[in-house]
Amino acid sequence: MEERYDIAIIGTGPAGLSAALNAKIRNKKFILFGSNNLSTKLEKAHKINNYLGFYGKSGAEIGEEFKKHIEAMEISITEDKINNIYAMGDYYALLGTNTNYEATSIILATGVNFGKPFEGEEQYLGRGVGYCATCDAPLYKNKVVTIVAYNKHEEAEANFIATIASKVYYVPMYKEEVEVDPSIEIVRDTPVQIVGEQFVTKLILKERELETDGIFILRDSISPGQLVPGLAIEENHVAVDRKMTTNLPGCFAAGDIVGTPYQYIKAAGEGNIAALSAVAYVDEMKKKNA
Amino acid sequence: MEERYDIAIIGTGPAGLSAALNAKIRNKKFILFGSNNLSTKLEKAHKINNYLGFYGKSGAEIGEEFKKHIEAMEISITEDKINNIYAMGDYYALLGTNTNYEATSIILATGVNFGKPFEGEEQYLGRGVGYCATCDAPLYKNKVVTIVAYNKHEEAEANFIATIASKVYYVPMYKEEVEVDPSIEIVRDTPVQIVGEQFVTKLILKERELETDGIFILRDSISPGQLVPGLAIEENHVAVDRKMTTNLPGCFAAGDIVGTPYQYIKAAGEGNIAALSAVAYVDEMKKKNA
Repeated sequence: MEERYDIAIIGTGPAGLSAALNAKIRNKKFILFGSNNLSTKLEKAHKINNYLGFYGKSGAEIGEEFKKHIEAMEISITEDKINNIYAMGDYYALLGTNTNYEATSIILATGVNFGKPFEGEEQYLGRGVGYCATCDAPLYKNKVVTIVAYNKHEEAEANFIATIASKVYYVPMYKEEVEVDPSIEIVRDTPVQIVGEQFVTKLILKERELETDGIFILRDSISPGQLVPGLAIEENHVAVDRKMTTNLPGCFAAGDIVGTPYQYIKAAGEGNIAALSAVAYVDEMKKKNA
Repeated sequence: MEERYDIAIIGTGPAGLSAALNAKIRNKKFILFGSNNLSTKLEKAHKINNYLGFYGKSGAEIGEEFKKHIEAMEISITEDKINNIYAMGDYYALLGTNTNYEATSIILATGVNFGKPFEGEEQYLGRGVGYCATCDAPLYKNKVVTIVAYNKHEEAEANFIATIASKVYYVPMYKEEVEVDPSIEIVRDTPVQIVGEQFVTKLILKERELETDGIFILRDSISPGQLVPGLAIEENHVAVDRKMTTNLPGCFAAGDIVGTPYQYIKAAGEGNIAALSAVAYVDEMKKKNA
């Protein structure tokens, strides 16, 4: 059996990092998923003057301070993408691209980079629509696969799928030049709708239609309702109370994912609350099972 | 008529300061009440490692960073103590020790330094019990006044009252040496109960009883329910929703005053939310009255 963490934190923006500090201080066994670049939003932000204590710094500079802080506290970031999380009763199963994980509690802090789902996306999720090409590749041996990718680093996924599938369409949703295996057909167009019967049969784009057996939609983050089935959503955000508690026991959320204002200090404050709520939950569970 | 502020922020801990940053950035006409020493709690805190971005700093050192930040943004602190706030319909009247103020919206960020009220305190509030000796002094001309003081700087209030009242008892609740006018009787004892009929008649302490016409209780902060009559309190804290909205329109609250966890980053995050909610409220009111 995999080792089970007390707390799994998903996201390395201010909310996730703040949560990690508190998990560390409270001596919990935790894992922090995200990127060593922290957050793309953080990187890109211009001057930020309302993070109390920092004046006149850019997002990147504040990010450097955050990084120094977590490094000083010996907190490491696991660069695996979590594609699905399932509530298993007294723990959560986290399905990563590289491997799977277990945690008693989870803190969702993945921000709001997920965008609106395409028409038909939710309907065909698990029936031809997926979010992790590497994970589900074996299902598409000698079949036609379409990849809708929001980030250049997904090109590696496409190349891998191309070694298995009979045909790969690649729909880049980013501006950079695409560099993929020559066997892959690059389609510069905008997806509109996913259609099918029992399973996916077609991706309709603005200009053309692609007959396909599977569609992988590779966004920077997955919308929370798709990431964690059963999670209550309210006006496009994870529904939480003031303790950052969601409708699922042991599942907490913090930062942009729970709603406006989209601000660093608000996210960091909520990460703190979420972590302390998770710590209390974990302690409670341990007492129960003792 | 006094000039009316858009937002009055009461408290200079992390919640109040964070709120002030946002009021400033949003170009609101605001006033920030508190101390240039910021917060006694902040001053006294040892190493704090969960304020994301600062590692290994003491409360005083983080306080210095906060101070630099607000000074860089040209935010000044008004060192007047707010003793009462009344909801007047479309604005709030704030009664300070030095003068009175008006504001369309208020943000309560006074922390949790208020302690439990004494038995009888709430019952006799306004009927012999008060929180501002200077304000109510004229009522006690040639009468007996008792001052229960939690901070050495209240000695000035006692000296002032002594010029008006016929007799002043001074009950210091702090450890430092008391230096007051020789006409004042210092009572080193612990208050237990305030009794009276129509008005206050007596303060009962552990060791003795004082016959008195008035009792001033001078705490570092006033409990929110007493500060703002009509404010909804829940488990000893100001009841707010996730937008930091209280039950009174235009009245917001943030930081320790709204509940645990008592942490800087949580308070700062809430100050951010409260300020943006206040800004939205003020804009809405202006639109209505335009």
